[in-house]
Amino acid sequence: MTPTLQMTVREIATLIGAGVEGDDGVIIRRVGKIEEAGGECVSFLANPRYARFLDTTLAAAVIVGKDAVMPDRTDHRPVVLRVADPYGAFVKVMSALTPVVPQLPPGIHPRAEIDPTAVLGTDVRVGPFVVIGEGCRIGNGTMILAGCVIGRGVTIGENCLIYANVTIREGCVLGSRVIVHSGTVIGSDGFGFAPRADGTYDKIPQLGIVALDDDVEIGANCALDRATVGETRIEKGTKLDNLIQVAHNVRIGEATVAAAQTGFAGSAKIGKRNMIAGQAAFVGHIEIADDCKFGGQAGVHKSITKPGGTYMGTPAVPFRDASKIFAGWSQLPDALHTIMDLKKEIAALRKEIDDLRSGKS
Amino acid sequence: MTPTLQMTVREIATLIGAGVEGDDGVIIRRVGKIEEAGGECVSFLANPRYARFLDTTLAAAVIVGKDAVMPDRTDHRPVVLRVADPYGAFVKVMSALTPVVPQLPPGIHPRAEIDPTAVLGTDVRVGPFVVIGEGCRIGNGTMILAGCVIGRGVTIGENCLIYANVTIREGCVLGSRVIVHSGTVIGSDGFGFAPRADGTYDKIPQLGIVALDDDVEIGANCALDRATVGETRIEKGTKLDNLIQVAHNVRIGEATVAAAQTGFAGSAKIGKRNMIAGQAAFVGHIEIADDCKFGGQAGVHKSITKPGGTYMGTPAVPFRDASKIFAGWSQLPDALHTIMDLKKEIAALRKEIDDLRSGKS
Amino acid sequence: MTPTLQMTVREIATLIGAGVEGDDGVIIRRVGKIEEAGGECVSFLANPRYARFLDTTLAAAVIVGKDAVMPDRTDHRPVVLRVADPYGAFVKVMSALTPVVPQLPPGIHPRAEIDPTAVLGTDVRVGPFVVIGEGCRIGNGTMILAGCVIGRGVTIGENCLIYANVTIREGCVLGSRVIVHSGTVIGSDGFGFAPRADGTYDKIPQLGIVALDDDVEIGANCALDRATVGETRIEKGTKLDNLIQVAHNVRIGEATVAAAQTGFAGSAKIGKRNMIAGQAAFVGHIEIADDCKFGGQAGVHKSITKPGGTYMGTPAVPFRDASKIFAGWSQLPDALHTIMDLKKEIAALRKEIDDLRSGKS
Repeated sequence: MTPTLQMTVREIATLIGAGVEGDDGVIIRRVGKIEEAGGECVSFLANPRYARFLDTTLAAAVIVGKDAVMPDRTDHRPVVLRVADPYGAFVKVMSALTPVVPQLPPGIHPRAEIDPTAVLGTDVRVGPFVVIGEGCRIGNGTMILAGCVIGRGVTIGENCLIYANVTIREGCVLGSRVIVHSGTVIGSDGFGFAPRADGTYDKIPQLGIVALDDDVEIGANCALDRATVGETRIEKGTKLDNLIQVAHNVRIGEATVAAAQTGFAGSAKIGKRNMIAGQAAFVGHIEIADDCKFGGQAGVHKSITKPGGTYMGTPAVPFRDASKIFAGWSQLPDALHTIMDLKKEIAALRKEIDDLRSGKS
Repeated sequence: MTPTLQMTVREIATLIGAGVEGDDGVIIRRVGKIEEAGGECVSFLANPRYARFLDTTLAAAVIVGKDAVMPDRTDHRPVVLRVADPYGAFVKVMSALTPVVPQLPPGIHPRAEIDPTAVLGTDVRVGPFVVIGEGCRIGNGTMILAGCVIGRGVTIGENCLIYANVTIREGCVLGSRVIVHSGTVIGSDGFGFAPRADGTYDKIPQLGIVALDDDVEIGANCALDRATVGETRIEKGTKLDNLIQVAHNVRIGEATVAAAQTGFAGSAKIGKRNMIAGQAAFVGHIEIADDCKFGGQAGVHKSITKPGGTYMGTPAVPFRDASKIFAGWSQLPDALHTIMDLKKEIAALRKEIDDLRSGKS
Repeated sequence: MTPTLQMTVREIATLIGAGVEGDDGVIIRRVGKIEEAGGECVSFLANPRYARFLDTTLAAAVIVGKDAVMPDRTDHRPVVLRVADPYGAFVKVMSALTPVVPQLPPGIHPRAEIDPTAVLGTDVRVGPFVVIGEGCRIGNGTMILAGCVIGRGVTIGENCLIYANVTIREGCVLGSRVIVHSGTVIGSDGFGFAPRADGTYDKIPQLGIVALDDDVEIGANCALDRATVGETRIEKGTKLDNLIQVAHNVRIGEATVAAAQTGFAGSAKIGKRNMIAGQAAFVGHIEIADDCKFGGQAGVHKSITKPGGTYMGTPAVPFRDASKIFAGWSQLPDALHTIMDLKKEIAALRKEIDDLRSGKS
């Protein structure tokens, strides 16, 4: 948390290509949210909802958009840095100001348990109480933190970061620059049982693996099951949040992001660049096209062949339909009363017509 | 499980302020459910659904409410203890009869790996295969069970209980009397990625922490993400059940309880004394007032400013509306038929009126 | 992954009771999916959706159903093995061809920490960094993989397989042939708190245990809470998938299967041979009959006394009703318009009738 670097506003402006309004010699040591930032902080304004904090922020400098209107303050005037994308620029500054402390010191901890047949690349760092099984191959620059258990014959690429208490079971294959957060299990058995005649079950052996391609990131306490045969695969650059379930033989296409607690049932195939909100569910054996979006808690029951759509609800339907259905629900109780009223009115009309016809009125 | 204490019914009556019907010298060694309790057990009756077990229970004594009617049994007559709150009284007896065995013996296990710069208070107990990183501060009387990994610069208060295989990442801050159950991860990276033009993602550094205030309890296998900047905070006395997701920059107010598998998306702010049932979901950046209640699987899509309400469904609506909507659903298929019928009837009426008008009938 | 056994088609045919069409001397060394299988593979066709791959598969042999029609190929003709149940037969071949490598070598790893009062049976295998507490009893042939923490007084039966980084808390009881996957927590405290007058909570001691009967299998990163008093019980042969929540005092009947991310709230009683899809939820204190089925994301709000039904939706209703309701939703927006139209038409009819009656038309 303690910052060990500092930059002048001028240096920051150069880094992010900003125009400066105010003293560009001001020294910045930290980043902070606009409503909390103090003394030597740089902050940013991207969401107009937070614009009111420009009136009160104590940040030394603020990164704002091209059109942001700065209030006329007398108490404190932050230096203004103008860019097209204030949040993107802020992220760059954040990375520059925060020294990246490696999660482990160099070397293999003496209290790690590494099979003599395992092959470790240069500058592999391994924490205490880690187990690396026979025949594993760990690429250059990869860090494996305390308490991880890496099963027999696992392959991990270069510059990966495996956080504490991760379990990777036998035979799984990770690409390079993969990040796996704590508590996650990769390669647990798929949920496969063959029913016997008496209603009990035989376990179906789960002989495949899990493969994570380059630049994949998996959140904390996820469970990714090995394939029955073949592989469960997460393609290049895909990011999964925490507590996600990936069943056996699932395949998730590249650059897809899925938020926490989502579940993918067996053999589901998800396309590229999907964006999936939290607690969504995909049933087994369906295929989803590229570039689709799914709302939170969506229950996706069938394949989607058309790319680019947005879906919500359970069963999931296109966004426009879901909005109408959700709006319809709130009108439903009244509508049911109206139907009863209409029924009565029609009966009354019928009686009146009959009366008219028979000349009674 | 083995009880090592015993009490007479008289002592129990004094403890819980009960009136006694029967022999107050009877000795009690264990507690048990009314349908299972045997010999030297005390049991209780709080829920009228279980009243029938008064006819058959073998408990030596039963704690009942002021109005409970005892059956006229000849086989076995449990001693009766009458109080206003039988369950609360039972809990007191349970605690008195069950010796609290500390989860760890005194001292630091020789197979723990504690950085020399970490500062441990008096009577800190640490189990085997625990890692405590540089600069950590652990308060008096705190226990850290086997396999926990505590990252650099973590602060833990006094009399905390960290169960086995918990991971707490760098810089996080826990108050006093905090309980964290096994498998939980505190301080994993928030799920933050900046999209590149080509549809892939840049990781946004997650530089904040997680802060748990005094008397917080977190269940098993939860994931609490560190803030992007600042802190993800769980306020005093809040209790989270198992498998809960808390995203970056979430803040949950004091004395809130949330049941298992609930998810809080990024920057959601939850008020005080909320009661949240299982598998609920809160979308990002919303604010929820104090003293609200949420049903299981509720999907809360927008801020709630009025305190004290009860909400259900997805999208979540007030309880009364949800009940009507749920009731409406079951009538919907019939209502759709009725609408078709009404349409036909109206067409028929129209025809008859036209006929009448043209003098055909 | 490397196969170390081989079989002729003849030997396979004998194993599975198949009729052979083609050369029964062909040697098989591996199994594979029909769309991926190559050279020395045997594959299978069970789902007609995959029948088209019979035209292109490079498998050396294919197990098919009695009625499967083999295409007339000139490029490559797999040997055909005909049986009544191709998938079941394939599973048998898979098991025969894949040597079962035990997850651990014989013996107790010197870096395991085993309390001297624990009693271990013959051929118990224990990995590094495992903790086994005082008074534990571990049955013959059971394997406990790296990083597991087994609390005081736990009993584990024979031939169990406890994968890495599992936590089993004090007093829990596992039967024989139980499998527990990585990261799962058995016996965490139930979520029980007694509200104080000021809105804060007292923790209710959770004094019971979790009992898993013979042949139970629990997936990865599940959380099974100990009972408040008595036991949380999973009966014989029941299989739970990953990330499942089992609250205190739940009882799940034998040979039930539940898919990932399902939650069972406190004291729910589930019958035998239930089949539960993913992300389902059962509220507390309900009882479910035997042989029921539940759809994904179902929210089961009340007891079901009739065995054998199928339920879907939230709140869960019988399958037939749910299908009608889901279909009704999509018609709802139009129906609401129709109701408005009917209302207008009725008003128009009323006016016409009034006009007719008053002789205006």
